[in-house]
Formats: sequence, structure tokens, C-alpha cells
Amino acid sequence: MKRIKLVVAYDGTNYCGWQIQPNGITIEEVLNSQLSELLQERVKVIGASRTDSGVHGRGNVAVFDTNTTIPPEKIAYALNHRLPEDIRIQSSTQVLDNFHPRRCYSVKTYHYCIESSPFPLPTNRFYSYYTHYKLNIEQMREAATYLKGEHDFQSFCASGTNVETTVRTITEIHIRQKETVITIQVSGTGFLYNMVRIIAGTLYQVGQGKLEAKQVKYILESRNRENAGPTLPAKGLFLYALQYEEIVN
Amino acid sequence: MKRIKLVVAYDGTNYCGWQIQPNGITIEEVLNSQLSELLQERVKVIGASRTDSGVHGRGNVAVFDTNTTIPPEKIAYALNHRLPEDIRIQSSTQVLDNFHPRRCYSVKTYHYCIESSPFPLPTNRFYSYYTHYKLNIEQMREAATYLKGEHDFQSFCASGTNVETTVRTITEIHIRQKETVITIQVSGTGFLYNMVRIIAGTLYQVGQGKLEAKQVKYILESRNRENAGPTLPAKGLFLYALQYEEIVN
Repeated sequence: MKRIKLVVAYDGTNYCGWQIQPNGITIEEVLNSQLSELLQERVKVIGASRTDSGVHGRGNVAVFDTNTTIPPEKIAYALNHRLPEDIRIQSSTQVLDNFHPRRCYSVKTYHYCIESSPFPLPTNRFYSYYTHYKLNIEQMREAATYLKGEHDFQSFCASGTNVETTVRTITEIHIRQKETVITIQVSGTGFLYNMVRIIAGTLYQVGQGKLEAKQVKYILESRNRENAGPTLPAKGLFLYALQYEEIVN
Repeated sequence: MKRIKLVVAYDGTNYCGWQIQPNGITIEEVLNSQLSELLQERVKVIGASRTDSGVHGRGNVAVFDTNTTIPPEKIAYALNHRLPEDIRIQSSTQVLDNFHPRRCYSVKTYHYCIESSPFPLPTNRFYSYYTHYKLNIEQMREAATYLKGEHDFQSFCASGTNVETTVRTITEIHIRQKETVITIQVSGTGFLYNMVRIIAGTLYQVGQGKLEAKQVKYILESRNRENAGPTLPAKGLFLYALQYEEIVN
């Protein structure tokens, strides 16, 4: 028996998110069924991040145990042949048997893409949130500095979420612009439910001038979801990468 | 009567190209029908570039004549409300009555996108040609220098094309890489049928090492389509921009 780690990229447009659920097709379900057929074993993957319906993956991680004789690094190729073209394994490697993608320490990086221009480009429509507002990037960058570090992010968590603590650490936050697309890149060791989409919605309002950059400090301190900006749509969000400390065999 | 110039962006995935044809829906047909309904006149657009089936537009140009009282710059907004989300007008402006988008001097810029990585990213699948080969960008850049300027591009023209001359001028050619996507940007005053896709296919073979960079000079001189590389798929091609000299009213 060996444990295999997959790095999984997907276009979330046509999926009801990662986690298996009764009302629609999910990434987890497709991986389980295609891996089970490929390996002729009953396979159940454990995902690192249960991304929501419509969210895209670029570097999500899943592990599973198998007795297969297929060399670990070849599984990616064999599995990609069976997967629909909106899911593609980026690598398959053997890891330690006790490696668990949610319990082991990791840094997650998300990208949230906002297209800001007088008119949207059709080729961006599934992969960004469109606004005709011109956003003030410098103000957004200043606001982002208040979010970096360890804070109680209760204001940036979907209300009703039941967690022990809403304290989280953002290790990096950067805002970049390429042509009409502004990308908010957020890295951290853990995220609350909808946290990145609420951060994006708050920075979006700063960019519009609806909020001042320094208000973000008070929004954090208020620990009240109502003070933060809107939850921006799923389609602009990419789970970009997960970095683990040594997990090789 | 006034003449209006539209800058038109589209995701070509679901269209049989620009020009009206009996076997499928085209960009031209959608524009004609939606403009006619909007303006309550029979409108026929004249397109600058009749892009092929599956090719994307970012800055294609169309003009039409109208008696409407809608201010020219407002037409873009009104038309976008009626268009499917894979076509979006980027601007609408009044131009001189004798402005013709194919007869007036212009510089066209195309982008051809190649994704080069061990595994494809699903979110690139409609907008790039995927290869698992690692491409040598420096060799591709050297090869591109032979194509710049005025040349007989018969080797880079779909065979059987009936044109007076196959001499064309490439004013700029650049190759850029961003993460796994290599973009070949080609600007010129006129292009032969499939010329950019054959240039892309030839530079692709140079990148693979199947052709040496300097062979591109001999391919040009041979004036024989068989010596150039393959015509890469439509989905990687974007008509990026058209620049006209003064056309304002």
C-alpha cells in the first residue's frame, strides 16, 4: 500500500465544487470514479481544500492509498486520459503514509481576478469578476497591508460559520494588474469560509472609493461581517497553489 | 446617415468564424440581427477581418451606416445588452463616411498562444494550443527575426489561396512567456490566409528543435508551403488589435 499525492487543476465552471454532494457533479466524485476504474480498486481521495461551486483549481491537492503497480509519477498521465478536459492532474508523487493534505502544515495561495474596464472581454467571462468601475490599485494595496499578518478575521468570514477561532494568518497579499485584469493574490496558513472572496469584495470597494483604505483596519477590529464588503462571485477565485513542508517518501 | 465603427471582442469557440455562411452561426450574422433589432433599420456590417471558425477576436472592427438618433458612443452599451455574452462591443464611434475597414490602411496585430508544460491547465484549453514539449524561446526569437520586414510569404500561406501577390510586411514580431503560456505577437499591414497559424506552427517546430532557427530564412526563400511548419489550431489565435490612421469625423 502506498499513498499518492495528486496536484489537481480544474475549471470549476461546470462543477458543484470539490466535495461530493447529492445535487450535482463534483471534482472529488469524478476523481474517485476515474481512479477506481483506472486502478481497479475502490479509491477515495482526501482533498486539501473543498473549493466551492464554480471556484477554479490550479494547484489543489488530493491523496489516496493504492496497491497499484503503476509507478507513482505515471498515474497522472494515465488518469488524465480518462478525465474530462476540465480536470487535469498536474503531478502524481508518492508521499509518506501519514501525510494528510488538511492536517499537515501548508501555505495556501489563492488568486482573485477582477476585470476592470469599460467593457468586458468575452474570453475572461468565466475566470474573473467584471466591473466597469476603474479601481484605484494604490488604495487597494494600502488596504491590503492591514490584512497581512495574524488577525481575527471574523469580519471576513461568512456569518453562521461554526469554527473554534476566527484568528488566521495571512503571510502574503499582493495586488497586480495586467492589462484590464487585477489579481489579488493571498497566501496564508488557513482560511475561513468565503474569506478570500470577502477580502476581494472589501478591496474592490476600496478600489471603487466606497471605502477608504484605512477603514479596513477598523473593519478587522469590529469583528462584524456586516462591515466588510460583499462576497465576490466564485468564478473569479482560483486555488492557486499549496505548499507543504517536506512530504516526500 | 452616419457611419459607425465598432471594436468587437468575441470568444470564437462557439462560432463558425466571422463571415455569414449557411452551415453555422457567425459573428457577422449575430451583429447584423441584433443591430437591426436595436436600431429598427436593416443593418449590414462590414468587417475588417473575416476570422476563421474558432479564432478569437479582441479588437476586430466592423462598420455600418445608420440613421439612428442614439449617440454613437452609446450604441456599444445598448448593443451589448442584446448580444450573447461571448460577444462584447468594446467601443462605438462615428467615423468618416468613406472609412472602409478593409480598404483603409491599417496595422493588424495577432496573438498566437501556445501552452507548454508537462500537463495542460484546464482554464487555458479554449484559448491556447497545448504541447508537452518544452520550447526553446531564444531559438524561436531568432527564427522570428527572419520573418520581420517585407517578404514573399508564399511558404506561409495555405496552398490553393488565390491572391495577386504573396508579398506582405511584418512590422513587428515578438515572443513572450508568462508562466506556461508562450505568446507569439505578430503585427503587419496585411496577412495571407492562415499566415499567422503557419508562422506559429513553424516557430513551434523551431522551439521543439525540429527546425533550426536559420532554416526559417530558407523556408521563406523556397516559396513552398510544404517547407513551413503545420497550421496550428484556430483556438490559439486572437485578432488582438487593428490600428488605423486618422478615421475620426
